[in-house]
Parts: sequence; structure tokens; C-alpha cells
Amino acid sequence: MRAVMQPEPMGLHQILDRCETLFADRPVTVGGGAAGPTTTTYGALFAEARAFAGALAELGLRPGDRVATFAPNTREHLLAYIAVPGSGSVLHTVNIRLGSEEIAYTVEHAGDRVVLVDAALWPEWSAVTLPTCVEHVIVYGDIDELPERHGGAVVTRFADSIAGPAREGRWYRPADENEASGICYTSGTTGWPKAVVYSHRSVYLHALTLCGADTFAISEHDVVCPVVPMFHANSWNLPYASLLAGASLVLPAHRTDPAGLVECFAAGGVTFSAAVPTVWANLVAAARAGDVDPTALDSVQRVVIGGSAASETLLSELAELGIEPVHAWGMTECSPVGLIANPPADGSTAVTEETKSSQGRPMPGLELRAVEGDMPAPWDGTSIGELQISGPYVVADYYGAESGSTADKFADSEERRWLRTGDVVTVDRRGYVRLVDRTKDLVKSGGEWISSVTLENHLLAHPAVREVAVIAVPDPTWDERPLAIVAARGVDAARLRDFLADRVPRWQVPDRFEFVAEVPKTSVGKLDKKRLRTEYA
Amino acid sequence: MRAVMQPEPMGLHQILDRCETLFADRPVTVGGGAAGPTTTTYGALFAEARAFAGALAELGLRPGDRVATFAPNTREHLLAYIAVPGSGSVLHTVNIRLGSEEIAYTVEHAGDRVVLVDAALWPEWSAVTLPTCVEHVIVYGDIDELPERHGGAVVTRFADSIAGPAREGRWYRPADENEASGICYTSGTTGWPKAVVYSHRSVYLHALTLCGADTFAISEHDVVCPVVPMFHANSWNLPYASLLAGASLVLPAHRTDPAGLVECFAAGGVTFSAAVPTVWANLVAAARAGDVDPTALDSVQRVVIGGSAASETLLSELAELGIEPVHAWGMTECSPVGLIANPPADGSTAVTEETKSSQGRPMPGLELRAVEGDMPAPWDGTSIGELQISGPYVVADYYGAESGSTADKFADSEERRWLRTGDVVTVDRRGYVRLVDRTKDLVKSGGEWISSVTLENHLLAHPAVREVAVIAVPDPTWDERPLAIVAARGVDAARLRDFLADRVPRWQVPDRFEFVAEVPKTSVGKLDKKRLRTEYA
Repeated sequence: MRAVMQPEPMGLHQILDRCETLFADRPVTVGGGAAGPTTTTYGALFAEARAFAGALAELGLRPGDRVATFAPNTREHLLAYIAVPGSGSVLHTVNIRLGSEEIAYTVEHAGDRVVLVDAALWPEWSAVTLPTCVEHVIVYGDIDELPERHGGAVVTRFADSIAGPAREGRWYRPADENEASGICYTSGTTGWPKAVVYSHRSVYLHALTLCGADTFAISEHDVVCPVVPMFHANSWNLPYASLLAGASLVLPAHRTDPAGLVECFAAGGVTFSAAVPTVWANLVAAARAGDVDPTALDSVQRVVIGGSAASETLLSELAELGIEPVHAWGMTECSPVGLIANPPADGSTAVTEETKSSQGRPMPGLELRAVEGDMPAPWDGTSIGELQISGPYVVADYYGAESGSTADKFADSEERRWLRTGDVVTVDRRGYVRLVDRTKDLVKSGGEWISSVTLENHLLAHPAVREVAVIAVPDPTWDERPLAIVAARGVDAARLRDFLADRVPRWQVPDRFEFVAEVPKTSVGKLDKKRLRTEYA
Repeated sequence: MRAVMQPEPMGLHQILDRCETLFADRPVTVGGGAAGPTTTTYGALFAEARAFAGALAELGLRPGDRVATFAPNTREHLLAYIAVPGSGSVLHTVNIRLGSEEIAYTVEHAGDRVVLVDAALWPEWSAVTLPTCVEHVIVYGDIDELPERHGGAVVTRFADSIAGPAREGRWYRPADENEASGICYTSGTTGWPKAVVYSHRSVYLHALTLCGADTFAISEHDVVCPVVPMFHANSWNLPYASLLAGASLVLPAHRTDPAGLVECFAAGGVTFSAAVPTVWANLVAAARAGDVDPTALDSVQRVVIGGSAASETLLSELAELGIEPVHAWGMTECSPVGLIANPPADGSTAVTEETKSSQGRPMPGLELRAVEGDMPAPWDGTSIGELQISGPYVVADYYGAESGSTADKFADSEERRWLRTGDVVTVDRRGYVRLVDRTKDLVKSGGEWISSVTLENHLLAHPAVREVAVIAVPDPTWDERPLAIVAARGVDAARLRDFLADRVPRWQVPDRFEFVAEVPKTSVGKLDKKRLRTEYA
């Protein structure tokens, strides 16, 4: 029996039309300028987005065509978030931290016809050998000289490009909600980046879910500062969730250092923010050292920490500043937020503390399981297995992947496709997931598993340790042993070994410690264990 | 360009599986018993629902088959909300306030194979001439004697029906999210009731939207008491939203009188409730008169008022009790909540007050317009037009309606279908809708429109007036004039006329007042203006 509900597609139009008509007065604050943060309104911003959409139409862009950005979290980047899918085109947010060859690869793979580039990134961008699909490069921001051409593409200034007629009427309404609205490439540790293509349906559904009272609770009353880059998994979908809710947005541009953030937070009265652990650790350290004024954080109610696991130390340091830390887990492939560590309603204080430091429970709409040897592990808080996720805003495959090349990324069962996350986890009886390790990073010593993440978290709790990565190194007796690469001051291996021995079984304590000035990271700021394994093998 | 997201359907399975696995410990409290409210858990409730689902399977029910309920807000009714769509069958919640002939009509029209009946309603139910489609009548609750048959149907006690094997595994996952999950009949003022068929998609999407921080913000931390009947537009979808969020539910059964409600509120620690204005007006009156203990309302944070427009008096009386009133507007055809009167984030106190008493802004996903003479009226707060609504959880048509018979309920434009609500409204520049009147209830006096709702609201603000309905009556000079039918004590027409004359233009003041003990209401508790027009024509 079929229902007789309207076949109305879910899509970006429901977000954009809503924000433009209901929330025109809400402020948007943008940092990064020489004169400090400036404030505009959604009304003014949407007028600009209509001018940009008009420019794209003048260039002959049609629904389904790809438009790329090469930019930090700026006003013009937000204009592209509105104008590109709002015109039916597909927004490819190029990761500015990729190498030139990888950038060229993703631009060609996506088939981008137009690219919007931040002038401050012109040196990096102009080093890219542009593929022939790119017809126009539009540059915004301060720059004295620009060439007329970049490869085969015409180079234009943003201000000149938007001089023509603006788009009129409602924003683009997809005929089919499964039409693409955006592309993000995952920076895998092997091979070329892989393309995740979001649909109007998945973006709307995920943004709506982020507005839930028990997820991120994004509200019209919030002032949201996405520190996580807009070129990284849609800035965790916070821009679209904020537009849907009518939350005020604060964009820090390139100023994600503690001083820059504090300036933006104070200027906009930020209530909600989101970033990787390093950003928060730096901000906490700066506030404690008196390098930034901690009262500038007074308006901040809650911050999301994701991208990699946060230590309990960091969670409690944020709480001491009067900020509620919300631990979350995600992947570009999950739109991207998949788990949120909100505590259960009727838990004890101990349960609340424990669950807040876990990776969390699944977002509404998602199913999860931990699989060990093809069998789902019981939800007992101790059995381990690979975390697998399924749901309407999880990828079924990578776009344009060669047939069969991504088969090891998925598992199928009962008409359902599961994304293999590569994370080894436990799940407790309430559904809270706890990260044990990456499948690749577990250390198998004498037939027993050692979690590199557990060792890292314990070491990070030592006051002298700033950064740490634990990797497996080959061992003739035990097959593998853990090696700790540490950035620290005033501590030696013997002391760290003693420190760990009080906290983990003695056989798990690394024999070897290497002290470095900084632990190398990937283009998205995660520990680069692939490189470390090669260096220390 | 198509995205490569999973084609995972949205549906009740995402709500039911989620609640059962994540929220098994959360309490559910049920009132109406002789010994007062009792408390169980979702874990226990889902075990019972699996027994009921097993019973339905034993009876040969297959996906798409219809199962009806004839019950107030009881535990068994909630079991049907879980077990019926959770087995792929379609839940028809029969309106117990319809007449016997209308009940028989809806049961036959839906093709119900099984009906679950509350024993307390056996007298009303057994008076129905059962259509032949009904094979089984299952009765729960205290009743001494039951016949073996009702019409052609076998009569069974609920406890006996669930003795067989329980359903195992996950709940039913629809192959197509547009499959029907439930049917509600609208009690129109003309003709037979019309069937609104909800889909897995529409119910999930609407429930997810109700969990939004800026809609009803239904949270795991809430204790939700749906006073609005579960046989009326899915109890405004609060049961499914609560299951999705893991909110504790409190079901008052037939005890929707002030004493019964207060008992349930206190027993469950209710934080959130929802009902029509009359329920809240009675509760406020009882609390003020000392008939109920007002401290029993201490846990209540916010209540939704919908079904018909609430007076500003009622809104402020609830606020005085420390309860935040949330004014909402809906229709069975909109799943059912369409508008919510949450104030804007940056409004002044005056704007906040004004918007809170409006019908509200559209829920995420919905579009609205006010149409006057085929043209959308401007959003200026004064131009009037018929409210029309469009969106993925709004009906495209009525189920099983004869071709063309419902054409006047819809308007089409730009590939979009609009539901004609029959409400005349203004829309202000922020999108807040204010009800002027029902299209049928506007009074056209000397070529000028008089809003019956405005007159009613002013009269309700008079301390002596308990209930009032204003209707148009024919007039030889002015075509139509307003007539006020009033339930009041210690006031006469002259005083009410003076009272109104201070508040509305003098020509709008009714010439005629009729005093009655009670204003007649429809089966869903709304003023029965159709009957009044016949009586006073």
C-alpha cells in the first residue's frame, strides 16, 4: 500500500529558501581581514550569492556542472556554498592542504569547469598544472597582479565576475533528491584521493539531524563558528545546518590560531564551535598561559571535538573553562558526523563522564555494528570489532572509482550495505562506541592486541607531553612492539615508562621512545602514522 | 550527476530499532488504572510489542495489510504504534468520537483486517455494524463478558492473542520509503471522513523535524505526555518523535481531566505536553481554583497548544504557572504539525510576545503562501489570503478518493502541489502566520470582512466568558452579520457589546448574542460552527 504524500524532494532549496525568507536579519561575522572581523546579514549575503549565481549562469554553467573552491572559511566560500548548489551545480571543495599533483588530480577527476580561489592562496593554486576541464578561475581578495590565464582557463576577479544580472526567483529545486550537490575528496593514506559525492537528500537529512536537540542542537539562537575547514567534509555540515536553523555564522577565514579565534568569538558572540582536538588544545593552552583573554570565551556554550579522538584531559580542561565539550566521530563518507557522545538521560555521574569521552552513539537514521571475523560483536563494552556504518547519508561507493577497486571498503548483509570505517571499537549495551584503534594501527605483540590510541591517550595525560604517536615496529620475539614518538619537554623515556606502568599492563609499555620537535601530520591534521611507520620501520 | 549515497529508506524501523537498542532503560508511565499511574520501561514495552507483532503474524497479517485501533492513549495503543508498522502493516487509528456509521465507513474504506479495542469503549465499539473485511477483534482491558463474535469477526482477549511466539530480529524495513505506515481520517464538516495515508518517509521526516532544537526540541531528557489523542493525527506524531529521541512517555489513557492529568504529570515528572486549548484552559482554571495542586506542574517546562487557536489570555496564564506555552498550527494532512510559533532569535520583547501568539513559522521542509484570488499575497503582516502548504510530509491527495472529488483541496503551480488549508491568514516579513479566520467562517458585512476568530479571542479575554463561537447569519441590509454564541456567567449582551466596542471597530460588534450552557463541538473538540449555522440560520 502506497502513501499519498507529496513527492517533494528534500534538498538544498529547502535550506536556502528558508534562510533567505525567514532569517534575513540574522548576522554573519567574518574574520581574517586587516581591520578585524566584520558583520553583515543573511539578507545581504543572499543578495551577493544571487549575484554570484548570476555570474555562474553567464559563464554557461548548467545543473550538474562542477564548480570548485580553493579557500579557507571566508564569506566568498559561503557564497559558493549557497550559489553553486543553489543553481543546481555541484560544489567541489578542494582540500587546500593537498599537494599540487593531488589537487590537479581531484580537479580533473571531478571535471570542475570553474574554480573560486582565495587570493591569499594564489601561490599554492598557481603552482597547480590545471587540467583542461577548467574554463574559468575566479579570484577574490587582495592581490595586486593576476595573469590573464592560468593554463587554459580565463582568470577573473570576483568583483568583476558578479557585475552582471543576479539570479531571480527561488533557488534550484532538484527534480530528483539524489542529484549531487557537492563533492569532497578523502585524503586516504594510500593511492589517489577518493570522491565522496553528497546528494541534495543526504545533505538536507544530515543538516536536519544536526539541528536535533540531542545531536548538535543547532538553533536560531546560536552563533556558530565552524573552525573545521569548509574544504574538509563540508565543515562537518555546519554551514548548511546553520542556514537551515537560521543560526548566526562566524567564519574565521585563515585565523584559526588562538588569538584569531578569540577575536572572532568575541566579535560574533559565538555560542557553538567545532574543530579538531589540536585547535582546542592550543586554545586552552593559550588561555591558561594568559596569551589570550579567557573572558572572550564567555559566550561559548559548547564545542564539538572531532576528526580524531580527544583526550579526557582536553575534555576536562574545556569544562573548566565553562565550555561543554561534545565529543563526536565522523568520516567524510558519513556526511560526515556519525556518532555523538551525548550522555544518556538517566545515567549516573560516572556513566555521564564515561560516555562523554567515548566516540558516542549513532546519529538518528544510522545503524552500526562492530564486526570481528565476519560476525557482529556483542554490545558488551569489551568485545572488539571493526566499526561499520549504514544509513541514508552514508556513501554506497566512491564516485568514479574503477569497478571493484573499492570493494574492500564495504561489507554487504541483508540488503544492507555497510561502510567499513577501519576503526576498531567496542560498543556498550547502550550503544556507546569506544575507539580502540585504527585497524592498521593496532599493535599485535606476542599474539595480544595493544591499542596505540590507549597508549597515546595515557601519554597525553602526562603534563610534559605535547604530542605523541604510537606505532607498531617489527620485533623478532613478539612479532610487533609499540614505539612511542613523543614531542615533550623535560621528561625522558624512563619517566614516561614509569608513568605508563601505573596505567596499563606492563607488557604494553613501549620499550622504545623517540623524542621529536613535532609529530608529523597529514593534510587534514591527523597523525601521519603511514610516514612514521616508513621512517621507523 | 547522481550522488553515490546509500539508497537506505527512511522509515519507522530507524525509530523502533533505535529506541529498542539505545533507550531500553528509559521509563514509560501509563495512567488510567484504578491503582493510579504505573511505570515500565521501553525494554519491557518492546518485548510486549514483539509478542503483539507475533500475534499479528499468527493471524496471517502481511505487509501492507491494515490493523485498526479503537482506544485512548494507553499502553496497548502504543504497542500497536510499534508492532503494526513495525511488522509492515498499516496502522489505522479510528477516531473514537465519530458516530457508528462513520466508524463503519472508515473501517470498510481502510479495509481493516484486525481491530484492537479498549474494553472501556466496548459499548461504543459493539454498536458498530462491522464491515466484512474485519476478521479479528482483539479486546484489551477489564471486561467481564465478551461475545465470541462481532459481526463476522472473531473476538479475542489481548492477553490470549499474544501467547504465541514473539517476533524476532529487526523491525520491518520498507523496500520503498513511500510505503504506507498509517492512516488517519479527517473529520471534515461535509461528506464522509477523508483518508490521510502517511508513509514511512513522511512519519520519519516529521518526527525527526519535531526533535529539532527550534521546533518541539523533543529530547532523551524529556518526559513527554501526549494529551492529544493517539487516534487524532497520530497524537501530533509525539509518540514517534519520543521513540526516536528516547524521551520517556507518559500516557494518560482516558484521564485528560485536570485531576487525571496532574496525577500523570507528577507520577512521570512530565516536562513536555501537548493538547488543544480547552484542555489547558481547564487545567489552568483548576489550578487557580485550588482543585488541583499546582506544585504537581513544577516539572512541566513547555506545552504545545494546537488544534485550534489559543487566546493570548491562555498563553499568559500558562506562563504565569511557569510553563512555556508553544503555539502551533497543524492539520492531519501535514503529518500534522505545520507551523510553530517560536519567537525570532533577535526580536524585541514586543516582537517575542506578538510572534508567540501567532500561528507560527513553517517547520523545516515546508513552504507556505497566502493566496488571494490566485495570487500569492505579500508577506506584509496585513494582506490576507488562504494559507497553502507544500512539502514532503504534506498530502498530495486523499487515499481512495473518487477521481476529481478532492480537486478543490489542492492548487498546483510550478511543479509544486499546494494543500489548501481553508484558513485565511496574514504572513509577516519574517514568515509568521496569523490566523484571520476559516474561509467558511469569515463574516462578510456590507462588503467588508469580519474575522470571527478575532471577535472570539476578544470575548474570551472577558473574565465572565468561558466559551464562545461567532458565526455569520444572513442579514437583509448587510448580507451577513456576526452572531456570538456565548457560554458565560453573570454578564449580558449589553456589557459584552461595550467590552468589544473598546477593542474592535464598532461596526464589527455583533448585534446579536445567544447565551448557552455549552458551545457544541465536533468529534475532535473544535467549535461545531456547521451545526451552529444550521441552528441559528
